[in-house]
Amino acid sequence: MSDTHAARRDRAQQRVAALDADAALITHLPNVRYLTGLDSSNAALLVPATGGCVLGTDSRYTLAAQRDSPELELLTERFLVPAFGALVAERGYSRLLFEAQHMTVASHQKLAAEADGVELAPFGREIEELRIVKDDGELALLGAACRISSEALEQLLPTIRPGITERQLATAVERRMVDLRADGIAFDTIVASGPNGALPHYRPGERVLARGDLVTIDFGATSGGYHADMTRTVSLGEPAQWQREIYDLVARAQQAGIDAARPGAGLGDVDAAARDLIGEAGYGGHFKHGLGHGVGLEVHEAPMIGYGSEGRLAARVPVTIEPGLYLPGRGGVRIEDVIVVNGDGSSGTAGLLTTTTRELLAL
Amino acid sequence: MSDTHAARRDRAQQRVAALDADAALITHLPNVRYLTGLDSSNAALLVPATGGCVLGTDSRYTLAAQRDSPELELLTERFLVPAFGALVAERGYSRLLFEAQHMTVASHQKLAAEADGVELAPFGREIEELRIVKDDGELALLGAACRISSEALEQLLPTIRPGITERQLATAVERRMVDLRADGIAFDTIVASGPNGALPHYRPGERVLARGDLVTIDFGATSGGYHADMTRTVSLGEPAQWQREIYDLVARAQQAGIDAARPGAGLGDVDAAARDLIGEAGYGGHFKHGLGHGVGLEVHEAPMIGYGSEGRLAARVPVTIEPGLYLPGRGGVRIEDVIVVNGDGSSGTAGLLTTTTRELLAL
Repeated sequence: MSDTHAARRDRAQQRVAALDADAALITHLPNVRYLTGLDSSNAALLVPATGGCVLGTDSRYTLAAQRDSPELELLTERFLVPAFGALVAERGYSRLLFEAQHMTVASHQKLAAEADGVELAPFGREIEELRIVKDDGELALLGAACRISSEALEQLLPTIRPGITERQLATAVERRMVDLRADGIAFDTIVASGPNGALPHYRPGERVLARGDLVTIDFGATSGGYHADMTRTVSLGEPAQWQREIYDLVARAQQAGIDAARPGAGLGDVDAAARDLIGEAGYGGHFKHGLGHGVGLEVHEAPMIGYGSEGRLAARVPVTIEPGLYLPGRGGVRIEDVIVVNGDGSSGTAGLLTTTTRELLAL
Repeated sequence: MSDTHAARRDRAQQRVAALDADAALITHLPNVRYLTGLDSSNAALLVPATGGCVLGTDSRYTLAAQRDSPELELLTERFLVPAFGALVAERGYSRLLFEAQHMTVASHQKLAAEADGVELAPFGREIEELRIVKDDGELALLGAACRISSEALEQLLPTIRPGITERQLATAVERRMVDLRADGIAFDTIVASGPNGALPHYRPGERVLARGDLVTIDFGATSGGYHADMTRTVSLGEPAQWQREIYDLVARAQQAGIDAARPGAGLGDVDAAARDLIGEAGYGGHFKHGLGHGVGLEVHEAPMIGYGSEGRLAARVPVTIEPGLYLPGRGGVRIEDVIVVNGDGSSGTAGLLTTTTRELLAL
């Protein structure tokens, strides 16, 4: 992966140079991982406009950093921000970019105190922007995470029945993903049954699944640092008329969103393709969250696809498409897939990474 | 839990009043959870010196917040920091505290832009300090997390043998914790075998465990939001002389740290009790991290027990005690337990929450 990371650092250095700065200090850990491969809970990377980058981490990760990034100069410190502040002052830099979206006010004060005479300017989300379009290696890892997720759910479908609790089902999903060689769990699994389905981010509890419930399962595996994120809603027993109606509406809205997610499409237009359909059916007030988001080294990353979002999709961008309807006191439906926007402009299911059927299953 | 949370908010309000401010804006999610019970990925709490608190979250969590915190005024917004900025300006506050250790530079700018005419001042880690001493409910949840963790490892000991990979063992540990009704995994499990044991924060990989290895397993369950954190090092086959020597040294250092961890003890002195023993044996350069840390709603929280740490322990404070020795190219040993500092000043194992034997096991 070392060539890949070196190429990414080259692109980052071009951004720094374009912003007329001597260097950027990268402190957001997924960004450091993206640029170096180092998976550390304490790391930072100094990216100069020209010359070699300096990777900072503490002694717990020194050997890992030396092994994985032998070409990088290494700064071993526990408190990295002031250490890098001192380094840039020593180098006589005049302008340093920092990640204002991530650096805390307290860290910024420490940086300013050490980086005497150095102008500090916000870098914005430049590295996050580099991360939006994925390379083959990234899509392979994301694909593996999505395959594991889909397969885990498919294997468990026969076991979803009245009598088990939400938490038991959530546990079973996570266990099955690990059995299928997930590196880990992308986020806490949601299992929301019956009326609990009206809470989009419900935490699974002791409620026992009952005949007549809609059950929403939102979950994902990680593979090599890349996060899957998918949701299915199933019916326990034959669905009632109202359940089928909202399911079909959400399914149509999701397909409309998927169809709209082509290279060059406006993010707000993709959201609107799904949202308008729900609004026209009279349920506009019950779909309150965004339609989707990018996935990668973070489970929620750029681009965000929401109401009025600006910006456009590009090829090789993986995003979720996840409309939902939530009826307080009654229940809810959400259907979510990860798709990769196709380079050839094709639509439909060509780019679907999560492959479990989207038919309403009556279990 | 509502009375508990109201009492915690009272204490927070006293701190705000003591700092001569109109209110504090709490944005660190574990702090919001501590003060309200709400487990949300997007939340903030306005804590005025007097009067009711205002809980902010987005529409995904509205129903959960109304259910769990009916006594709190609710602000439903996606972008909470500017919304609270506008609210405090509207209320005519003159001085607002914010969590400078957590708020990003970019958020602070948005807050300042909306909170026109309001002085913004750093709040420090006041809520984290309130969280240090745990109540009975918290210790019960932490105890449950530690019991699950210990039991998971004990059940797996017979399966740890040459031929399995580090990752398979890590997966098995996590799966077993979930089987034992953990809510989740406190952090990514570390399994470091043979020479990999020299990397304190190694990520488990495809290395196959071999006879003659020391194997370090660092893992923990969560229960009700509370994080366990424990480590055992086992030997595959009879340990070599050097392996037994460093194991015994780490075990003695750990016991010295546990014995020193009494109410009123200086944090730096607790660290020194273990560190000096390792230094006197000639291995000082190979124990590079702190001796321990608090555990609770975060897996690493105050107090930090490290070289030169200031401050003192108190009763009802759960901390890890986790010395380690890391010999590059050869391997390492770490032994880690969660203990609760005892109110009666007793030492020894009375406060151990993680109960798996600390003898060197030859498997």
